[in-house]
Amino acid sequence: GITTTVCALDTVPAAALAHVLPHRPDSREGIIALAQHCTAITCESENIPANVLAVAENHTRLHPTAATIAIAQDRYTEKNYLRSLGIPTADFQVVDQASDVVVAANKLGFPCLLKTRRGGYDGKGQVRLRKADELAAAWSAIAGQPAIVEAMVPFTQECAQIAARDTNGHMQFYPLTFTWHREGILRAAIPVPTERELSAQARDLTARLLTALDYVGILTVEFFVVAGQLVANEMAPRVHNSGHWTIEGARTSQFENHVRAITGRALGETDLIRPTALVNCIGTMPLPKTIAAIPETFFHDYGKTAKPGRKLGHITVQATDQTALWLRVQQVLAAIGEAPIATEHHGNSKSKLSQQHREGVI
Amino acid sequence: GITTTVCALDTVPAAALAHVLPHRPDSREGIIALAQHCTAITCESENIPANVLAVAENHTRLHPTAATIAIAQDRYTEKNYLRSLGIPTADFQVVDQASDVVVAANKLGFPCLLKTRRGGYDGKGQVRLRKADELAAAWSAIAGQPAIVEAMVPFTQECAQIAARDTNGHMQFYPLTFTWHREGILRAAIPVPTERELSAQARDLTARLLTALDYVGILTVEFFVVAGQLVANEMAPRVHNSGHWTIEGARTSQFENHVRAITGRALGETDLIRPTALVNCIGTMPLPKTIAAIPETFFHDYGKTAKPGRKLGHITVQATDQTALWLRVQQVLAAIGEAPIATEHHGNSKSKLSQQHREGVI
Repeated sequence: GITTTVCALDTVPAAALAHVLPHRPDSREGIIALAQHCTAITCESENIPANVLAVAENHTRLHPTAATIAIAQDRYTEKNYLRSLGIPTADFQVVDQASDVVVAANKLGFPCLLKTRRGGYDGKGQVRLRKADELAAAWSAIAGQPAIVEAMVPFTQECAQIAARDTNGHMQFYPLTFTWHREGILRAAIPVPTERELSAQARDLTARLLTALDYVGILTVEFFVVAGQLVANEMAPRVHNSGHWTIEGARTSQFENHVRAITGRALGETDLIRPTALVNCIGTMPLPKTIAAIPETFFHDYGKTAKPGRKLGHITVQATDQTALWLRVQQVLAAIGEAPIATEHHGNSKSKLSQQHREGVI
Repeated sequence: GITTTVCALDTVPAAALAHVLPHRPDSREGIIALAQHCTAITCESENIPANVLAVAENHTRLHPTAATIAIAQDRYTEKNYLRSLGIPTADFQVVDQASDVVVAANKLGFPCLLKTRRGGYDGKGQVRLRKADELAAAWSAIAGQPAIVEAMVPFTQECAQIAARDTNGHMQFYPLTFTWHREGILRAAIPVPTERELSAQARDLTARLLTALDYVGILTVEFFVVAGQLVANEMAPRVHNSGHWTIEGARTSQFENHVRAITGRALGETDLIRPTALVNCIGTMPLPKTIAAIPETFFHDYGKTAKPGRKLGHITVQATDQTALWLRVQQVLAAIGEAPIATEHHGNSKSKLSQQHREGVI
């Protein structure tokens, strides 16, 4: 059997299921201790310094590689890398000092976004720039960290391509997944296998990235849909929240395929089994019984301490067809006190989402 | 999140995933310690003495109940209970001394089976009685334990009904599952949702049992098929090996439904998602890569020490249709060095199984 070892100083959800090494996961000692226990090492965050992770490569398999992590943990490097492969991204400018922010914002136009190069997630490390007199305050808000300024993308929908690549270079793609964010945090995700045109684009762009990185494991690319064209938002070199629906909804879950890939095995099939969606539990957890009372739901409680804005669990929702699924997702959102989601594809164009929902505030 | 605590003195597979209390699971201290840690207690074996388990009922939820365990852990009590509900079983006689065996065997006819009332599994605790002069040796072989003598059932197929019942009395039935044993040990299992007539019988008989026991959780009844009629072999008040295919093959796995039921939640749907089979790994484990190379397989290694006749893991096999599945099961059996399986339903009547495959030798 595969046994799991994690590095963690504090209590982490995985500690309930794994052997815990009492080291910081971003320390050399931690990485060396892990390498001594494990035949393969992977990360569930791209924020462990790449040069620390690189130590593992002298001892054991590391997937994603330190080189991939180095790209993913710096927004500027990542966007340049994506562009070098011909993958469209929002326009951006690197900023190293307050005066750079002024130049960048004037070039990209207002509103735009100031984002730290490193360490951001769930809308953290981002400030919206609305007008010229906000720039100095924004630069202070991110404490003068190296950053980029990014143009706003006028998208009509967001989506994620979850993909897997094995050690032989064979790739599998999960159905393109539409995503909905609020306050920079993923709220819901629905795979849409019928979106053939967008799906073909997403697979082509993601395949280019996986191949260029000689990637092994699961990787997710988040995209904006702009006038039917995909624009990459960011890559995540790991299992991804928008793919948690695969546990019940795909023939092989993203977790199983990640473990298969990093341990050198063949990938399993990634087809959707049945109309399936994901709803996140942010900040508070509902009662398990409340959710179990809604048919075809699966409750996942990560056992974390509740905190505003924190991802504490998720609910998988299934139904007979896509319309029934849509209604059931809204039912689950209502049951957990979340706002309904809307999309062009479901006839409610008035409430369609715009990028303001992605913005975080420091 | 649900955290799991187990009682175990030795290393058990669950120890890798659970908090371990260092008590014997069949001791009063063990049960009391568990009850103090847990909001619900369940068993993965029916061999913990019912009077010890009953202690838990003063402290917390226990499913199955001590009363159900008391029935299931004694073959004689169990068969009487099944018969009292009108559920057909093989003919049997209770035997408490050597002379009883002679009377019973003469009444039931040769060959027949001597089985201890308690503690048997995987063909253990059973002796085949071929002729009168073997009876004394057989009685010695089971060391004079309380036993039954059971008539042989001339079956053409074996099957298992895995079923779930929640605290409100609502029941869900997994598709009837055909099973194949060798040396008393389950080798393969395939759900056969097309077997409507047998399935209706199995659901009716199993529902009767679940209701009579006021059962909560997963329960499995193993049946013989005799001229199109079901004869109960035994009940297992727990998740069952023949239902391990539900992890990938059913909309809700037997494990998830067991946890939902015993924690008071509504059950999930039990439909088959896709043609699916189970192949057991007995005595040795294949290399993960060997199995991953066969399409649509899922490898489960329990991490146990290898030992002849021991269940060390299983492989879930899927395919597009039932015929392709059958061929793929044979391919997996060949890959792990197991004999092929045969059935009336697949045109190889010469090799159809008979009860001799179920017999264990002490």
